[in-house]
Amino acid sequence: MAEGRFITFEGIDGSGKSTQARLLAERLRAAGGDPLLTREPGGSPGAEEIRQLLLTGDPSRWSAETEILLFTAARRDHLEKTIAPTLAAGRTVICDRFADSTRIYQGATRGDLRAMVDRLHDLMIGREPDLTFVIDMDPAVGLRRGLARRSGEDRFEEFGLSFQETARHGFLSLVRDNPDRCILIDGNRSEAEVAAEIAAQTEARV
Amino acid sequence: MAEGRFITFEGIDGSGKSTQARLLAERLRAAGGDPLLTREPGGSPGAEEIRQLLLTGDPSRWSAETEILLFTAARRDHLEKTIAPTLAAGRTVICDRFADSTRIYQGATRGDLRAMVDRLHDLMIGREPDLTFVIDMDPAVGLRRGLARRSGEDRFEEFGLSFQETARHGFLSLVRDNPDRCILIDGNRSEAEVAAEIAAQTEARV
Repeated sequence: MAEGRFITFEGIDGSGKSTQARLLAERLRAAGGDPLLTREPGGSPGAEEIRQLLLTGDPSRWSAETEILLFTAARRDHLEKTIAPTLAAGRTVICDRFADSTRIYQGATRGDLRAMVDRLHDLMIGREPDLTFVIDMDPAVGLRRGLARRSGEDRFEEFGLSFQETARHGFLSLVRDNPDRCILIDGNRSEAEVAAEIAAQTEARV
Repeated sequence: MAEGRFITFEGIDGSGKSTQARLLAERLRAAGGDPLLTREPGGSPGAEEIRQLLLTGDPSRWSAETEILLFTAARRDHLEKTIAPTLAAGRTVICDRFADSTRIYQGATRGDLRAMVDRLHDLMIGREPDLTFVIDMDPAVGLRRGLARRSGEDRFEEFGLSFQETARHGFLSLVRDNPDRCILIDGNRSEAEVAAEIAAQTEARV
């Protein structure tokens, strides 16, 4: 059986990527597909336990290096227990955030750590998505949306606007550096317009 | 100020290393020193949170690779928050288990992972103890002692006798490979005899 496709959504907090990941899953289901919609950190029981350590509590509790290790541990569990078996069964996997988020949030906001993030990924994960949608968004709008959600997991939103702006530039350079798998999507439009473009790009890339 | 000494204790479960680490700390204190006694996994508030994920629950919940990442995350936090600042203040640190335990338990019991463990250590930890006491012990006696303790953290004891035997051989080869920092101690003697030898070796190595 052919392996399923691994599609990820990336972007700053409040960019609408979780909504768009869900809308793509719904559209594929409506067309008779059976995609799995998942997210990081989390996506498997063990990874959800690690997620609790990462997204609740004092934002300065972990150093950037420890945070990178915890995200990678959660990702390894998610990949082994959820993503890889689903792809092997021929199903599409749609994932809200993956390794690119670690590259940007830990690597690009502390640039000296980017090489460490990449080496750790190569050593312990070693898998890239087939297709990554990077949703671009005005950082101030994204921050307002993220804070309005008040999910109780405001771990990163608490770093503020300049953090969002740095992250946005990191995502833009990610698209430039990985043109084969990354597609930049303008998120400053209606949900329906953004969803329609993502659906068209997904079909074009089959 | 001169940096303090970093002394670790290693060995199979039930080998008496926790007791001996405590006895060495007491002896140094009685001689007017101010050593810090700590342990892994754990030893800092963040690392203790990670310890809970590792040592409680279903033993097969994590793959060896994910376990290695979680141990390394806990170790990074412990090193940053507890060990390094204490050494920098000129104090001796005595630690019950450190990176050697990961090398043996994850690396030697699944030999194909030893290279991964070493590369991860070099990338994310990069620090070795100044002195490591490896306490050797009959694996059957060690297992009986470990199980008798019933600490509620029987994560590794549950793997049984053949696991203890493999771990013992791993620790013996660790001493052979690192003669400059590792000292093999025969743990099949009274607590007082073992403690006296460890104290003598510690003084000899100042």
